[in-house]
Amino acid sequence: MAAPAVATSELILAPEQEVDTPCLVVDEGILRRNIERMAEFARGAGVGLRPHIKTHKTPEIARMQLAAGAVGITCAKVGEAEVMAEQAGVDDVLVAYPTVGEPKIRRILALLERARVVVAVDSTAAAEALSAAMKRHGRTLEVCIEVNTGQNRSGALAGDESVAFALTVARLPGLHMVGIMTHEGQANSAPPDEIETVALAAGRTMVEIAERIRGHSVELPMVSVGSTPASHYTPTVPGITEMRPGTYVFNDSSAFQYGRLGVGDCAARFVATVVSRPAPDRAVLDTGSKSLAMDPGKAHPGHGYIVGHPEAIISKLSEEHGVVTLPAGEEGFAVGDRVEVIPNHVCPTVNLMDDLFIARDGRLVDTWRIAARGKVR
Amino acid sequence: MAAPAVATSELILAPEQEVDTPCLVVDEGILRRNIERMAEFARGAGVGLRPHIKTHKTPEIARMQLAAGAVGITCAKVGEAEVMAEQAGVDDVLVAYPTVGEPKIRRILALLERARVVVAVDSTAAAEALSAAMKRHGRTLEVCIEVNTGQNRSGALAGDESVAFALTVARLPGLHMVGIMTHEGQANSAPPDEIETVALAAGRTMVEIAERIRGHSVELPMVSVGSTPASHYTPTVPGITEMRPGTYVFNDSSAFQYGRLGVGDCAARFVATVVSRPAPDRAVLDTGSKSLAMDPGKAHPGHGYIVGHPEAIISKLSEEHGVVTLPAGEEGFAVGDRVEVIPNHVCPTVNLMDDLFIARDGRLVDTWRIAARGKVR
Repeated sequence: MAAPAVATSELILAPEQEVDTPCLVVDEGILRRNIERMAEFARGAGVGLRPHIKTHKTPEIARMQLAAGAVGITCAKVGEAEVMAEQAGVDDVLVAYPTVGEPKIRRILALLERARVVVAVDSTAAAEALSAAMKRHGRTLEVCIEVNTGQNRSGALAGDESVAFALTVARLPGLHMVGIMTHEGQANSAPPDEIETVALAAGRTMVEIAERIRGHSVELPMVSVGSTPASHYTPTVPGITEMRPGTYVFNDSSAFQYGRLGVGDCAARFVATVVSRPAPDRAVLDTGSKSLAMDPGKAHPGHGYIVGHPEAIISKLSEEHGVVTLPAGEEGFAVGDRVEVIPNHVCPTVNLMDDLFIARDGRLVDTWRIAARGKVR
Repeated sequence: MAAPAVATSELILAPEQEVDTPCLVVDEGILRRNIERMAEFARGAGVGLRPHIKTHKTPEIARMQLAAGAVGITCAKVGEAEVMAEQAGVDDVLVAYPTVGEPKIRRILALLERARVVVAVDSTAAAEALSAAMKRHGRTLEVCIEVNTGQNRSGALAGDESVAFALTVARLPGLHMVGIMTHEGQANSAPPDEIETVALAAGRTMVEIAERIRGHSVELPMVSVGSTPASHYTPTVPGITEMRPGTYVFNDSSAFQYGRLGVGDCAARFVATVVSRPAPDRAVLDTGSKSLAMDPGKAHPGHGYIVGHPEAIISKLSEEHGVVTLPAGEEGFAVGDRVEVIPNHVCPTVNLMDDLFIARDGRLVDTWRIAARGKVR
């Protein structure tokens, strides 16, 4: 391997550390710092931290989050919740996703034997199905209303619609409505200098809705907001009780656009090898849509940021080839050279891997199974 | 569930068949027909069929391909080859990917105990490393030269460069050069009415290069071409000995643009449930970048083709939400309704799943493990 053309201080793997590639390496120090920082922020803001584990899907990391003070976890999939209850000792889960269909309801019932489970609902049809199943089994399920504060994905529309829906759900037998939640994803797609404004608006909307529902003699202890990009704004609105960031454990290239984070805050590196160097301006990395994922970048052109090589652009990604367009004279891209790539969106990348390789001071010290990887149901 | 708004003849799952979603369902009849058709085509063209198993990663399907007459298989990853040798009894593998680094060379050596292995090379550095390792272990490895016929990904440039590189490799101890290969991916991105021309040009280039190499007293039995879209053209060039299509076993929405294939040729359906219906023109499916994959479509707008609903567009895909934009009055999208989606690119979709659910006459009859899923190394 040629001498690295990049300051090794930016790398999390020492050049002499052998590793088969591609792989996802996590620096334990950066990971711990990210987890502690967010826990400290939540304490300061006076809200509960309920991290979304979709980012890491790894029991070891859920345990670290709980040890740092998380009140519970958030999942999208029942399968993720099952893994975390079984393997991470999690006993308080929000399934922040419309849970539809008898097979999933049966699994929610089984999960209730192990943990507190709150399920999000955003339609009368889904709420009634849950209600009927709970009645049949003589159980009560805690639910929260998903509110659409502007992302226009799922969720009952903020305002009259979500208040009316909440009051409908509050009357259904077998359900105990405990709160409202939103994923203020609209902040993620706002221009960097508007994220704060958009996030605060979403937070204020949530608090208003909660107050209106409470005005109908409904207790509503949980007012929950999500999203890492907005995480320093939305939870500061008085009346928000809980935050659900996910990506902050690792961060990714999208974090660069928010200004306050840099390469040194990115705990997860996709480690790739140059497997072909067919032209002076072209190298091929052993990465592709089946390992790095295809998500577009917001803060950097191409399919990820190559640490130490800001001008080398991963311009094309097929299933197993990452074509890098190189500026003239760029070093560090001989066949066999290794690079660290910061993914554009680390969550789908993690979901393509079976294991995280854990690094401490540049050395591989452990392997953690991504136990909830591929839990699509 | 509401009455299906789509002719059930287009669906591979009967509406009354219960299944937890999302999942990938494969119709065994369409799969068998696709496999037989391509085998028949290869026999007619007088070339060996060496299917790329990256599409399915499933031992049962590799066995079906071999039973239909395939001469061996193609893999991108050593890990795929290992699974297929162990679980599908495959004894002839082309690793059609630049194989770089000592960990992979050690695994190639182990694999040689179980199967014939041919490894593609496109750089002197990689060829010399393989040569040195084989010499050290007193072994000989069959290799073939990857030629770039216009895709501009990996591969030695067609013409003088690839001939000179082949002659260099032919002289390296421990290696036995048996052929040349190309992935004429440029045909996939050509306009539909130019695919044939582009594919035939690639085939002719390959035969010319083979002849020039043979002119230096090198035997060169293998002249191998790949890619499903070009599969009916490139292999017809006299002198081509082998074809390596992959996607044909399932087909996907990209096949529609080639005219001769339709929904009835698409064996793999992503089965999803409507989990939210937050607005008259918007439904949400339980699919996203972590299950359906993000590849753009060529023949249809959005993230896949919803069978029976050509005007309903999967307009936005986040990790677990597929937002569908609905035309006015579209039926079949109530919460709980189920749809079959033909992925834009089925290969990454398969790689996100653990299992294929097998359907026969509308009923689920089996589950096949996607045993080589996630074999990124």
